[in-house]
Amino acid sequence: MKIALSQLNYHVGNFEKNTEKIIQHIEKAKKKGADVVVFSELAICGYYPQDLLEKERFILSCMESIDKICNYSHDITVIVGAPSINNTNKGKRLYNSAFILREGKIYDTIHKTLLPTYDIFDEYRHFEPNKTFRLVNIDGKKIAITICEDIWDEQSSDNNFAQKKLYNVSPMEELSKLNPDIAINLSASPFSHDKETKRKKTIQQHASKYKLPFIYVSQVGAQTEILFDGGSVYALPDGSIQNELAYFNEDFAVVDTENRSKPTIQPFKGNIGKIHDALVAGIKDYFNKSGFSSATLGLSGGIDSAVTVVLAVEALGAENVRVLLMPSKYSSDHSVKDAEDLAKNLGIQYDLVPIVDPVLAYEKSLSDVFKGLEEDVTEENIQARIRGTLMMAISNKFGNILLNTSNKSEAAVGYGTLYGDMNGGLSVLGDVYKTDVFKLAHYINRDEEIIPVNTIVKPPSAELRPGQQDSDSLPDYDLLDSILYLYIEKSMSNEQIISHGYPRDVVERIVGMVDRNEYKRFQCPPIIRVSSKAFGGGRKMPIVAKYRN
Amino acid sequence: MKIALSQLNYHVGNFEKNTEKIIQHIEKAKKKGADVVVFSELAICGYYPQDLLEKERFILSCMESIDKICNYSHDITVIVGAPSINNTNKGKRLYNSAFILREGKIYDTIHKTLLPTYDIFDEYRHFEPNKTFRLVNIDGKKIAITICEDIWDEQSSDNNFAQKKLYNVSPMEELSKLNPDIAINLSASPFSHDKETKRKKTIQQHASKYKLPFIYVSQVGAQTEILFDGGSVYALPDGSIQNELAYFNEDFAVVDTENRSKPTIQPFKGNIGKIHDALVAGIKDYFNKSGFSSATLGLSGGIDSAVTVVLAVEALGAENVRVLLMPSKYSSDHSVKDAEDLAKNLGIQYDLVPIVDPVLAYEKSLSDVFKGLEEDVTEENIQARIRGTLMMAISNKFGNILLNTSNKSEAAVGYGTLYGDMNGGLSVLGDVYKTDVFKLAHYINRDEEIIPVNTIVKPPSAELRPGQQDSDSLPDYDLLDSILYLYIEKSMSNEQIISHGYPRDVVERIVGMVDRNEYKRFQCPPIIRVSSKAFGGGRKMPIVAKYRN
Repeated sequence: MKIALSQLNYHVGNFEKNTEKIIQHIEKAKKKGADVVVFSELAICGYYPQDLLEKERFILSCMESIDKICNYSHDITVIVGAPSINNTNKGKRLYNSAFILREGKIYDTIHKTLLPTYDIFDEYRHFEPNKTFRLVNIDGKKIAITICEDIWDEQSSDNNFAQKKLYNVSPMEELSKLNPDIAINLSASPFSHDKETKRKKTIQQHASKYKLPFIYVSQVGAQTEILFDGGSVYALPDGSIQNELAYFNEDFAVVDTENRSKPTIQPFKGNIGKIHDALVAGIKDYFNKSGFSSATLGLSGGIDSAVTVVLAVEALGAENVRVLLMPSKYSSDHSVKDAEDLAKNLGIQYDLVPIVDPVLAYEKSLSDVFKGLEEDVTEENIQARIRGTLMMAISNKFGNILLNTSNKSEAAVGYGTLYGDMNGGLSVLGDVYKTDVFKLAHYINRDEEIIPVNTIVKPPSAELRPGQQDSDSLPDYDLLDSILYLYIEKSMSNEQIISHGYPRDVVERIVGMVDRNEYKRFQCPPIIRVSSKAFGGGRKMPIVAKYRN
Repeated sequence: MKIALSQLNYHVGNFEKNTEKIIQHIEKAKKKGADVVVFSELAICGYYPQDLLEKERFILSCMESIDKICNYSHDITVIVGAPSINNTNKGKRLYNSAFILREGKIYDTIHKTLLPTYDIFDEYRHFEPNKTFRLVNIDGKKIAITICEDIWDEQSSDNNFAQKKLYNVSPMEELSKLNPDIAINLSASPFSHDKETKRKKTIQQHASKYKLPFIYVSQVGAQTEILFDGGSVYALPDGSIQNELAYFNEDFAVVDTENRSKPTIQPFKGNIGKIHDALVAGIKDYFNKSGFSSATLGLSGGIDSAVTVVLAVEALGAENVRVLLMPSKYSSDHSVKDAEDLAKNLGIQYDLVPIVDPVLAYEKSLSDVFKGLEEDVTEENIQARIRGTLMMAISNKFGNILLNTSNKSEAAVGYGTLYGDMNGGLSVLGDVYKTDVFKLAHYINRDEEIIPVNTIVKPPSAELRPGQQDSDSLPDYDLLDSILYLYIEKSMSNEQIISHGYPRDVVERIVGMVDRNEYKRFQCPPIIRVSSKAFGGGRKMPIVAKYRN
């Protein structure tokens, strides 16, 4: 059987474009002689529509798209993901389904069994789980169709406690009892830099365990915080990978389950390279899908804004990025020069807007109210907020989106000013630890010096008071990031982290800072997620809780 | 059987304080001769701990609290809510449970069956549902114990589509087959101004349907966005209410299922009165539970900041509220006077900080970059952001929390400046439509003129340009709020709203504004929830979606 894998970039709620794309690829699959063409999970509406799924009109639009696509299903079987209505008289209103379209009609519908409801996933909020299992007969072949999480039944419900399987049922185990010939999985599997290997292994294990040709079709592109990296796969019954589709790009392949051809495997890419590609894709899609083309940000001469602006230029083009340099009296000369050098290297428009006048104006305005009081963090924050206000003035006047340049280490410990440097429509580095920001800078400079070396080698500083360095108030980033990783990604307690050899006083101070700053992160911009645990919707913490640790 | 209803205010993660409170009330119940004392859902850790539930140490702390409380269970049976560990080898790690403590030990544990996972609820993220049913034998009585949502099995999965029951099982129906003598429900039922009647009716229906004495114990207090209003109830087998506990206050009562006494019912309070009490409770608990005592905000002379400051003074005391008046060249004289009058009426500290100097400084700084360009919304936003920066300077310097004064109508249509008047640690009115803000003002002035009448009667204006009025860019608030209510609370589509008699052009414009401003609301402060559908965690919408309507 010839099966087309169609790995596309969908836009949530953009029915017209999604449908058009799907139809184009059906036609392409037909031309290539495919018997079946497979699209990914919730392809019709994009993944994840969140509470748009509660709108009647939204679901009707899904159905209208399915109807349109049916018209193209005459010489081919189309398998495509969309929500479907639960017509029983109980349970959630919808299923997360695979529609099988043949001969101009909906031939069958298979519903998702395992509904991920953890981390970034919220599917039980909207969907009723499937509870019965059957194969779909297509041209004499019995196909086991599953949707994304359905093949992740082996995962544990927890990293930290005794191992326990999260799910009570294994869809592939149930389907295998019915003797399928081929397995097909429709996915929307979000990227994290450590997931690709695990994902391929899961697919290969399913193929070899059930001795089936296994077709796995995912999607690409970003939906604000969540990225899909593609990498669709056709695995042989022995578990080997016959075809692997592109990462971060749309791709298409027709595989033949009867005849083997030469395997096509994607080139290896290291973690930092993957994070780089992910962030560029994340920026690109945020702009494309929100109808904006140009970005702005503030260049400080530091490494975070340097890496951010390079990624922005890669995503949007130099002509679509304009920056401000906003020195204060505490800014070093080399900071301004480093920022200027970078802007010139990239060929982007830049303006120099010193903040000295607004600083004086605020001092004057507040002189009565602050009379007799010492300078403190208030005055540092005023500088950051002046810069934030200037950046938003550029954004408002020229209609570009402000990119936020805070990194994950800063976001974690609250080292940033709300309504100041925490401003922005999208946080580019909010899921990248400072130590990885350095690695990204080296990666960017791998062929030529784009980011001035001085930006990379000088000690990090917010330059909000004379001689300030990050290391005055934070431990070295190597130590900080190691502790943060164990606390955030690995959910360890203080005691567990300390038992890994980290100093108690540092651990307690850092963990306390993370916990106390939930209120700041509550108001931060959406963050492009590249790790297994990002700040944002995947880590929901109460703001006024007393609990620390 | 004598049963004590203990309706308390818990603090998420504050094990020491929650445990101490529970023990005090066990002792009180003993003194009053109670056989059983009942506390509410997740009382041990507070509702809702969100992803703190994923921390091993957090769950161990729950267990330690239960152990401590066991020591006080010698002459009484204690029923108290807490998470418990799922010891089977499959499923989510935890149950949401009622612990029954007797004679110094855990006598039994009953798990919650129906796990709300919609709107503000996220319980399937953390809990495995119960699937088997049994009664608990206490002193010869067979007790049917359920937890909160377990008695809401009749609700529909949707307002808009064909009626369908959300749940597949009815816990009380299952338990009633075992012939219970008494029903007890442990709740954490969040307040919305339209819920009290529905809640009481649900309890009464259960009592009369199953002909059982029905004990319903809820909690009070706010956890940032979510409020619990109390109103615990003891209903007789005929469905009549025998006892109703206080609203928005801790309360305690011992009821006797064998003997009737005179009913105690709470006095009636209208919707606006309830919203008023809810907002005061919401402010009070946010400060108490985050360890802050004082607030600041900007008084514009307008109605939103006027109502907010009055609520803040009620919650925190006049000595704990200090305000700024920040007139611009567009501010009318009466605005400043109205704000001063209000500050004087309330006896709070106020300072006048004109924004003219910072405005000039920004103009100067940006003069080159903006050369030859017309003034537009950029300059209006700069004014709002100067005020936001000044307010945060007060907050930073004096250690008080900035209260946000935006109302729900503004938040809905994006009529507000990010990093300007949208600043704040807590949004007081973000779930109150402008028309209800007016009603709150009248309610506040019901006995004397606290808010200057001029503030209430003058046409609303942001005063960001000469002669600006809200009605220049928005329809009348009566019309606006009616459309918003149908769109947000009632999830209606454009066409449905239009079919209710609203003008097409206005509906389409308003709905478009709501949809386009998801990005702004993503970064707004937490909002005290008083309606059935507030902005925030209960309404999750994608930011870059194309879908409108």
